[in-house]
Amino acid sequence: METIQFNLPQNQIPQAWYNIVPDLPQPPAPPLHPVTHKPLSPEDLAPIFPMNIIEQEVSREREIEIPGEVRQIYAQWRPAPLIRARRLEKALDTPAHIYYKYEGVSPAGSHKLNSAVPQVWYNKQAGTKHLTTETGAGQWGSALAMACSFLGLDCKVYMVRVSYNQKPYRRALIEAFGATVTASPSNTTESGRAILAKEPECRGSLGMAISEAVEVAVKDPNTKYTLGSVLNHVLLHQTVIGLEAIEQMALAGDEPDVVIACAGGGSNFAGIAMPYIGRNLKGKSHARIVAVEPAACPSLTKGHFTYDFGDTGHFTPLMKMYTLGSSFLPPGIHAGGLRYHGMAPLVSHVISLGLAEATTVQQLDAFAAGIRFARAEGIIPAPESNHAVAEAIRQALEAKAEGKPRTILFGLSGHGHFDMQSYIDYQAGKLENYEYPEEEIAMALSGLPVVS
Amino acid sequence: METIQFNLPQNQIPQAWYNIVPDLPQPPAPPLHPVTHKPLSPEDLAPIFPMNIIEQEVSREREIEIPGEVRQIYAQWRPAPLIRARRLEKALDTPAHIYYKYEGVSPAGSHKLNSAVPQVWYNKQAGTKHLTTETGAGQWGSALAMACSFLGLDCKVYMVRVSYNQKPYRRALIEAFGATVTASPSNTTESGRAILAKEPECRGSLGMAISEAVEVAVKDPNTKYTLGSVLNHVLLHQTVIGLEAIEQMALAGDEPDVVIACAGGGSNFAGIAMPYIGRNLKGKSHARIVAVEPAACPSLTKGHFTYDFGDTGHFTPLMKMYTLGSSFLPPGIHAGGLRYHGMAPLVSHVISLGLAEATTVQQLDAFAAGIRFARAEGIIPAPESNHAVAEAIRQALEAKAEGKPRTILFGLSGHGHFDMQSYIDYQAGKLENYEYPEEEIAMALSGLPVVS
Repeated sequence: METIQFNLPQNQIPQAWYNIVPDLPQPPAPPLHPVTHKPLSPEDLAPIFPMNIIEQEVSREREIEIPGEVRQIYAQWRPAPLIRARRLEKALDTPAHIYYKYEGVSPAGSHKLNSAVPQVWYNKQAGTKHLTTETGAGQWGSALAMACSFLGLDCKVYMVRVSYNQKPYRRALIEAFGATVTASPSNTTESGRAILAKEPECRGSLGMAISEAVEVAVKDPNTKYTLGSVLNHVLLHQTVIGLEAIEQMALAGDEPDVVIACAGGGSNFAGIAMPYIGRNLKGKSHARIVAVEPAACPSLTKGHFTYDFGDTGHFTPLMKMYTLGSSFLPPGIHAGGLRYHGMAPLVSHVISLGLAEATTVQQLDAFAAGIRFARAEGIIPAPESNHAVAEAIRQALEAKAEGKPRTILFGLSGHGHFDMQSYIDYQAGKLENYEYPEEEIAMALSGLPVVS
Repeated sequence: METIQFNLPQNQIPQAWYNIVPDLPQPPAPPLHPVTHKPLSPEDLAPIFPMNIIEQEVSREREIEIPGEVRQIYAQWRPAPLIRARRLEKALDTPAHIYYKYEGVSPAGSHKLNSAVPQVWYNKQAGTKHLTTETGAGQWGSALAMACSFLGLDCKVYMVRVSYNQKPYRRALIEAFGATVTASPSNTTESGRAILAKEPECRGSLGMAISEAVEVAVKDPNTKYTLGSVLNHVLLHQTVIGLEAIEQMALAGDEPDVVIACAGGGSNFAGIAMPYIGRNLKGKSHARIVAVEPAACPSLTKGHFTYDFGDTGHFTPLMKMYTLGSSFLPPGIHAGGLRYHGMAPLVSHVISLGLAEATTVQQLDAFAAGIRFARAEGIIPAPESNHAVAEAIRQALEAKAEGKPRTILFGLSGHGHFDMQSYIDYQAGKLENYEYPEEEIAMALSGLPVVS
């Protein structure tokens, strides 16, 4: 029997998360205060995050110990499987070896629980009673609701309206864990009301939902805000993915030539990529690192690398990142988790340093790849994950055309069980590609803040 | 860190399925020809099953080797996790140890793929081109469609109409694998047309869907029929669950006092129970073995143990089993996989011998247990699995009331990601309990065939 599972026992869950910052040739640019434009102090973040999270956000330590209780919760599904896609290789008739690190075995169905659990845990330590957050595709919202249910905190989720309407079952899942779900933009916040006053039928965006969730946290001392991506501490928590994958690829006796992951806010990409970039920097590997984004929301490939707000309402600090402008409203593609105007500053930084590269995939190609993958491997990927699948398949076929071996590792960030409507629409021919929305991006970019 | 995962490596996937028949104190009664009422010969089954499957159906061998290619496909998700539900134990404040064997990690989301893969494999060996089947909740249909996609056979699924309407996403999943789905009863078969002529709005049942799928197979020599439960070979394939669980409980250093699983047709129950019953018979364990059925369809607890047809149209052999009568149409509970008038003959036989017991759970209690489980463990169980969860929780609370330890192992047969509408309805107070439908059962039982 060919080994296709390269799994680690529970006691090999990483002891520490990996912070790439001290290993980088240059440090990332600091976040700036949204009003003064001066580098942010930890205290500036205190209204929305507890201090233990803020310490992680600004840490220069290479290894940050994972608390015992967090590892204990991780133990339900971690180490997550690394699987060799032998049937997909055969279906493609490729000499490439294709491996996927599968985060869909998490009870929340995606990588998001890796950060939801520690975020809730640190908040609980700090005495937080209520948490707010935003969710796009719903992956983060369900993960946070679940983690709050595990640890006994109250949870309020602002869900991007287009996803709220497309995904009633995702909403039901979040509610099953006892959290409340509000479609964003909503009438429950000043920022939401301001948006609705201008555009009553607004379909929402991650940026708008962030504004609402942050606003609620700022106004109540017992409430803190959590984010499912973008920030350093979130990316940090996700590094368990890559740390495990490195050990598992060693079990497989193989070394990736290329590591691929989809990138929306950047947490899934960073999770698998940062440990491999660190490994490359140490000269232990020479893997190409590829972030895949949707053609409809191409922050890395078409955005500017500059300071911008993380949200539409301009509550957040200014962060140096690849951005399409905080007023850019991406088309309503089904990969809701990739509809963000910016990219994590740390991901942006490593891309700007040439330590990783970026490419785009069109919506129809992403779904075609997902169906191809499902028919060979059984798993229906999340629409977001389909972007990584598409690039992995493209590379496997490229290797075939060249007649050369290639070892491909990609992050399969989650399953698509709550995204079946998008598959129904795809199979019915109702989905479309979106060309790079040039004029809208230009207009959004023209509104970028000027930082001297 | 407490160990909560008791997982085995890929090379400990069982080498052979376990056939309990040679270990039983009495052999089960033979199936009878539906017309002559004489014991069935293997040739009688040849129009609907290939001979290699029929050989398994009648085998008296204790161990039946799992083909290499089947084990290779199993290796994507097997050995399936055994998890100790520490957070649920804490939430219940019980001295009981609660373990669950989780089959939802299968790419099909339930235990059904354990039998779908070998059934498709044996059919492929025998030259079958097309397969038909029925599906209730949709778990079996998606598993068979997936296995056909893996191995390159054509697949046609008759889906009980009530599930077809309740579960469009389950249908979409089956179609994503390239299979066709028809709502049953349908106009595509004689038996379907006969039912619709009497009752145009008929919501269907597993028995009716079986009639249609069998009819299609009988009429075409290149088409064979597959069943997701009830028959010996299906139960056999599921024994990987219990065989693995025995090894995993040994890893945990614990021995179950009780083994619990939901029972509809009987395959999930048999999968975990038969290896434990065999172990009990050898004196190696003394576990209570409990089958849990819905109060709305109580074949084991309210049916007769006698010969009956497996389907509504009376195409199938007569099987000695606990049955409510083949004309019994269960209420439209959301646990579609448990809406079957009979019970696997082998399961019925071990219950009649006192080697296992049966109990019932009401629909509202099942969902309440599922939500309770989800809030502690994260996993949203399938509505079928909720019946096992409810009994496990009941037993854990009983142990608490007694102030005594108890080791509870239950089969969590699948996740409920495609059943969210039932959770929405439950949370909205739209679901109801069904009292034992006494008059309907009495009427159905009065029509049982007379076998001399």
